[in-house]
Amino acid sequence: MKINLLHSTPLVVASKAIRKCYKSEGLSDSQSFGDLLYLGEKDKSLIYRIGNQMKHKSTLRHVQYVFECDNISTKTLLALTRHSIGKDISVESTRFTLSKRVDELSCTKTGNKYVDDCNEKIMEMVAIGVEYGIKNDDLSMLLPQAYNYSFIMTMNIQSLQHFLELRTNSNTAHWDIVNFANALADKIPEEHKYLFDESIYKEK
Amino acid sequence: MKINLLHSTPLVVASKAIRKCYKSEGLSDSQSFGDLLYLGEKDKSLIYRIGNQMKHKSTLRHVQYVFECDNISTKTLLALTRHSIGKDISVESTRFTLSKRVDELSCTKTGNKYVDDCNEKIMEMVAIGVEYGIKNDDLSMLLPQAYNYSFIMTMNIQSLQHFLELRTNSNTAHWDIVNFANALADKIPEEHKYLFDESIYKEK
Amino acid sequence: MKINLLHSTPLVVASKAIRKCYKSEGLSDSQSFGDLLYLGEKDKSLIYRIGNQMKHKSTLRHVQYVFECDNISTKTLLALTRHSIGKDISVESTRFTLSKRVDELSCTKTGNKYVDDCNEKIMEMVAIGVEYGIKNDDLSMLLPQAYNYSFIMTMNIQSLQHFLELRTNSNTAHWDIVNFANALADKIPEEHKYLFDESIYKEK
Amino acid sequence: MKINLLHSTPLVVASKAIRKCYKSEGLSDSQSFGDLLYLGEKDKSLIYRIGNQMKHKSTLRHVQYVFECDNISTKTLLALTRHSIGKDISVESTRFTLSKRVDELSCTKTGNKYVDDCNEKIMEMVAIGVEYGIKNDDLSMLLPQAYNYSFIMTMNIQSLQHFLELRTNSNTAHWDIVNFANALADKIPEEHKYLFDESIYKEK
Repeated sequence: MKINLLHSTPLVVASKAIRKCYKSEGLSDSQSFGDLLYLGEKDKSLIYRIGNQMKHKSTLRHVQYVFECDNISTKTLLALTRHSIGKDISVESTRFTLSKRVDELSCTKTGNKYVDDCNEKIMEMVAIGVEYGIKNDDLSMLLPQAYNYSFIMTMNIQSLQHFLELRTNSNTAHWDIVNFANALADKIPEEHKYLFDESIYKEK
Repeated sequence: MKINLLHSTPLVVASKAIRKCYKSEGLSDSQSFGDLLYLGEKDKSLIYRIGNQMKHKSTLRHVQYVFECDNISTKTLLALTRHSIGKDISVESTRFTLSKRVDELSCTKTGNKYVDDCNEKIMEMVAIGVEYGIKNDDLSMLLPQAYNYSFIMTMNIQSLQHFLELRTNSNTAHWDIVNFANALADKIPEEHKYLFDESIYKEK
Repeated sequence: MKINLLHSTPLVVASKAIRKCYKSEGLSDSQSFGDLLYLGEKDKSLIYRIGNQMKHKSTLRHVQYVFECDNISTKTLLALTRHSIGKDISVESTRFTLSKRVDELSCTKTGNKYVDDCNEKIMEMVAIGVEYGIKNDDLSMLLPQAYNYSFIMTMNIQSLQHFLELRTNSNTAHWDIVNFANALADKIPEEHKYLFDESIYKEK
Repeated sequence: MKINLLHSTPLVVASKAIRKCYKSEGLSDSQSFGDLLYLGEKDKSLIYRIGNQMKHKSTLRHVQYVFECDNISTKTLLALTRHSIGKDISVESTRFTLSKRVDELSCTKTGNKYVDDCNEKIMEMVAIGVEYGIKNDDLSMLLPQAYNYSFIMTMNIQSLQHFLELRTNSNTAHWDIVNFANALADKIPEEHKYLFDESIYKEK
């Protein structure tokens, strides 16, 4: 599993959205130097107060994160299906890539010896099928839920907060999506992290 | 694969939506008798003209179909991930059901003997894992993309039209989702079918 | 302001969606007689427990309400703009209807004599403009926020719950949208009302 | 009417999303220097081919534009209601700002003398109402559709393309939203413009 943040919208956009609603642009303490935008302390706490505490979440949707996600299990990709709002995703297609990249195929390890050994055997079956010249569309029907996909995923602050709330809690979520959720959380830009503190479940 | 239409919105709702936009309710030839609504011929062609030809699609979004979908491959469920707009889905959770229903586990047949034999072996590995008492969360990592899920899925006219356009063409879509798309199309209520004629790809 | 419920999805669809997730269809106590579906008591409390208490809201999105909304102020229609998820709307177009229906034009009364008198004068300006033959596209630029629109609006259980939570509280919402939210709440089918009890703000 | 582009996602994100689907990252000719990303010519035409021609639009949704929109008529804001997918908007609230900013209130001119004169009278009624101390919630019911709002709006490539297709054609759209659509189009970054050429209606 490897997560890389490709892009994020500058947070000052959220304070601009909030100040537009209240016509309070004059009170902003953010500054721009050429292309660069610096978020002031007053604006920073405004975003927290209006977006997080008063739950005026629509102002947080202007800020997006684009994540490059490599080697994520099919299991976790399936769980992502259930998060459709405020999320866009472009997934590697086994239709086009399976036989091309047979050397790089990998599975997520579970730590359970029986399961991991079985998955090794299954991936051998797949490799043999590629040698037999079986078409990707049939052969991919063997790939296990431990099989790793790669994808690009965009979420906004609101949808990422919601995702982390549901998926960082290992009491109710599968261990692999908990790992994935925490790996996303680690890549949130430093300046944005204070908005996600309450979204991430902490074991007591 | 088994599809069952659980519910559909009466089509007269779309003509009411259109006539509301144009303030032409007086021209409607639909009738209601108690709870029953009969769609008139004029209203029927109005929906086609405004919704399909003039592409005022928002008026078609008020009409929804709820499908019960049993024994659908993981492969096809994954492809559904890419259709997020105008779709709601509730999927059987292997977290809760895997060991409970080990006798009913099934895979979609591909017609390729090697692949189908391998899938039989994989499902035996899963059954053995259940006997070993391996937890669902680890064991489900073995399930192949041929493994069958069940789910309830809601789409509106616009999103179903779009799905059928993309997924009934076997030149560009996987054979299993082509089967699924055609199975959905078969369950569209008779009275609604004329709105989907151009959405379903026909081999020449 | 006049609200009419055109259609609602039978609630049993939500219990079917929940039971599909947990593979517990065998425990359902709902029954169907021909086209009619009766929701059993066990299923009724299941929906409440899973959908409302455990917040597995996606299972509630399969159930939709189609409302016919007549004589709703522009003000309230504008506020609806901010609710875009799980909502579809088809609005009367002043481009096509303004001069056609000059006799039926109406405004929502505010109870403030000055404002209501001014609105009467404004609507006279509009009527005179129609007589002058001014085009709808220019003339509609005079219509005040009290001006009444008609529209068809579809919401699902989750989006209606969210809307009522935000808009039935007159401490934070405009009085006209509070009226509108309560008018929608009144039209929720009896059998469904128990799912909305906590969504409707009650003055203490 | 004044539009300002606050932020846009670098276009290279779209080519990364496409290359992830096809596992063709090795063919990319884009380059990064520190924080800066340069989109290569091959990647540029890939985005056009896959996103626009093959209509694999989901790969275009990762790229977002945040527009600051000042002095936009209520009429046009209402029309925006009908575009709910792939759009987020934060609008100035008259509940909080009306009396505060009575000196800055403005209307969009129609060019029709009668209408523009009437709107001047209406805005005087509003100013008098502020002096009388009438509450914003009642007084705002007088504001005409020519009244100007300010808002922050985010759209992605797909939703902006769709919006421009529908709203730059003055044969079917109101002149004010045509102006607005063209003003947005003018602010699309130079490097991105080639993706919108076919979306903008040209009079013949």
